Amino acid sequence: MAKITARTPKGMRDYLPADMLKREYVLGVIRDIFESYGFEPIDTPVLELRETLMSSDYGEDAEKLIFFAQHGGGGDEYAMRYDLTVPLSRFFASNENALSNPFRRYHIAPVWRGERPQKGRYREFYQCDADIVGVRQTSADAELMSIIYKILNRLGFEEFTIKYNDRKLLIGMGIYAGVDEDRLPSLYRIIDKTDKIGLEGVAKEFEKEGFPAEVIDRMMGVLAFDGSGDTNTRLTALGNLREELDGIEIALEGLQELEDLTRMIDQLGVPTTHTLMDFTMVRGLGYYTGPIFETIITKPDNLGSVQGGGRYDELIGRFRGQSLPNSGISMGIDRIIELMDMLDLYPDWVKTGTVVQTMVTVFNDETLVDSMKLAQELRNAGLRVETYLDARKNLGKQIGYADGKGIPVIAILGPDEIANGMVNLKRLADGEERSVARNDAAEEIKRLIAGG
Amino acid sequence: MAKITARTPKGMRDYLPADMLKREYVLGVIRDIFESYGFEPIDTPVLELRETLMSSDYGEDAEKLIFFAQHGGGGDEYAMRYDLTVPLSRFFASNENALSNPFRRYHIAPVWRGERPQKGRYREFYQCDADIVGVRQTSADAELMSIIYKILNRLGFEEFTIKYNDRKLLIGMGIYAGVDEDRLPSLYRIIDKTDKIGLEGVAKEFEKEGFPAEVIDRMMGVLAFDGSGDTNTRLTALGNLREELDGIEIALEGLQELEDLTRMIDQLGVPTTHTLMDFTMVRGLGYYTGPIFETIITKPDNLGSVQGGGRYDELIGRFRGQSLPNSGISMGIDRIIELMDMLDLYPDWVKTGTVVQTMVTVFNDETLVDSMKLAQELRNAGLRVETYLDARKNLGKQIGYADGKGIPVIAILGPDEIANGMVNLKRLADGEERSVARNDAAEEIKRLIAGG
Repeated sequence: MAKITARTPKGMRDYLPADMLKREYVLGVIRDIFESYGFEPIDTPVLELRETLMSSDYGEDAEKLIFFAQHGGGGDEYAMRYDLTVPLSRFFASNENALSNPFRRYHIAPVWRGERPQKGRYREFYQCDADIVGVRQTSADAELMSIIYKILNRLGFEEFTIKYNDRKLLIGMGIYAGVDEDRLPSLYRIIDKTDKIGLEGVAKEFEKEGFPAEVIDRMMGVLAFDGSGDTNTRLTALGNLREELDGIEIALEGLQELEDLTRMIDQLGVPTTHTLMDFTMVRGLGYYTGPIFETIITKPDNLGSVQGGGRYDELIGRFRGQSLPNSGISMGIDRIIELMDMLDLYPDWVKTGTVVQTMVTVFNDETLVDSMKLAQELRNAGLRVETYLDARKNLGKQIGYADGKGIPVIAILGPDEIANGMVNLKRLADGEERSVARNDAAEEIKRLIAGG
Repeated sequence: MAKITARTPKGMRDYLPADMLKREYVLGVIRDIFESYGFEPIDTPVLELRETLMSSDYGEDAEKLIFFAQHGGGGDEYAMRYDLTVPLSRFFASNENALSNPFRRYHIAPVWRGERPQKGRYREFYQCDADIVGVRQTSADAELMSIIYKILNRLGFEEFTIKYNDRKLLIGMGIYAGVDEDRLPSLYRIIDKTDKIGLEGVAKEFEKEGFPAEVIDRMMGVLAFDGSGDTNTRLTALGNLREELDGIEIALEGLQELEDLTRMIDQLGVPTTHTLMDFTMVRGLGYYTGPIFETIITKPDNLGSVQGGGRYDELIGRFRGQSLPNSGISMGIDRIIELMDMLDLYPDWVKTGTVVQTMVTVFNDETLVDSMKLAQELRNAGLRVETYLDARKNLGKQIGYADGKGIPVIAILGPDEIANGMVNLKRLADGEERSVARNDAAEEIKRLIAGG
């Protein structure tokens, strides 16, 4: 048999069992919480028609990054899923009559982008989106913020900040400062750098860009706004700003949305220690039309964003020819999986790297069926059990196998145990051994796994 | 906004929430049982290198059926996953040092084939495979058979038959009948038709093919073997056949494997009412090297195969240049999902078509936050809850929405209920209403959902 080079495509990877346990654990928590808020799962084909993706606003580079596909027999040209938003628009247009309105959906699925692979960035990676289609009210945005909090809290993250802002307020701030509409994009682009260069740096960039001193003063006054503190402090600060921005309709709408959001997330149990109203957070230029969110993990350092999202009322209706209110969030799964490792947040059973809770050993060919039968009894009692199926290997080899895999407990069955209706149990981490009646074996194994 | 035609590629489909609930329910049961036998989840990229797939034995038509892909920027050529066996071979070769030996893995993932779409056959569909790599013994095959039984039993199927046979016995039967080795393929091809044309039809085809009368007599004698009955009956029948085939080494090996299988599945609790030793079951010509299985649902009629598999010791090692013993099964997910519908086997909550257990209504803008807060309390008590977020819609509209979605219980909250700390609950199926203290609402909702 000739050996053929076996490698995965560049930037794409295999998930080994230990990787899968982590991925499924994180996705399981996220799914549970999405569903607890009434979000329904959907899925779409990996392939969309080429024209579906090409009619979207992925930007000028997209044509180089999208993976195109066709089957060997010819026919239609396809493109591989590039994000979950265009598929949602297409899905909604294809199935609208069968969907509820409002429609809450989540979608967890891989997407493909031909970007240069680098550490932590892949060409095949998972996206994980939840959207509320059809609700214009800020109540939808507030529920999404509380979902972000619940997910990160449940996963065990302790120090993180959900930043929120509002696109309408950003537009209003530009008007207030006297910036011409065509210069708003460069204004936002500079504001977006605050995280990196600080407010002083932003003021300098404003100068370099040639904004008048008065405009800069006004902008810096608003950008220096302190959006931390408890709910009442924030509502009072927003009230003061309302007077400052009086007469600028779109700014006042944005402030109203931020007041509603602040009040609602408080009622939904999101602690203000984990949120920050941040007027310097911009999240790109087009696309968003109302509240926007972005979440960063802050311990031990600023470990970057694990979530983005907000209201974008103009995108989901594109394939049906009529706009639809919509607000959504996207969780950065790869980043979360990696940070959970760094911060040691996985539960013990995920860290073993195996689903197996117990391995039953085999003594010889004659007792093999007895070992298989004991394993079956333990499975019927709710345990995940592997039988060692090859009696030619001695007990030392078998235990070495279990140990190498991270299996916590082994059940040893020899002719004496079979004759006496007993089983010998051994916890591999500390060598604790117990001899128990076969009928009690499952309960005793559960105790051993739990550390008892 | 211009309307753009929105359709899925030919033979590919969206999964709406009701479809996803069914898919996830079936896959959840299968995953649970695979893991209870110690099978570990893995995943591989959707794309493999083109040369990886083209070096495989998919047959001459495959080049027309495989979907090929490349990203817009050029570079390597890729092929979309066509099955889960070639990816397993490639995965094993890429990661062997990090894997246990033996290695039990399951893989549930979509594959793509450009076949002509027809009812129940898609170009994107799920495969669901479990394999034990590295175990030469029949004990592995026996565990796989007991997994098939457990999965179908847990899903609620009552009448099904797991057929089993052995490739070594089939070869031995050819030798016994005096068929030249180069004519074995046509012999098997004819035997494979027994299901459709019966034993008499098979005898006629043998004649047409020009086999001597003596060969036909001998073959028909073996094919008429009755492999039903209880375990002892089967073992006795196999013992008799052993005398008949005495001296034909490969036949005796096959018989030994069938004896071991029959004895082991009995000990593993697989009832003989649901298995059949069937010498006319062939499962293709190449590929398999030992025990083979195939499962059909038999109620109300022969509804076709939902599972195939067996031992194929020569395939998994192809990319590492050295063969590896291996036995595996593949479950037909699409067929199972469809049959569960036909036989009405889904639990009630799957049949509602929604994850939502309760919807909290909203009275007006002033009480909206109270409704959101009640929903949050119910979620914290373990329920999946949607808040109706738009206070402009009247109660009738809100209830209509919940009813249309199949939500079983609604929680009505108006100013009076808020003032008194009460909630009004209503089960939509029968109109049952209960007014309860807010603290008791979650428990009462659970009772209502359970029909109490």
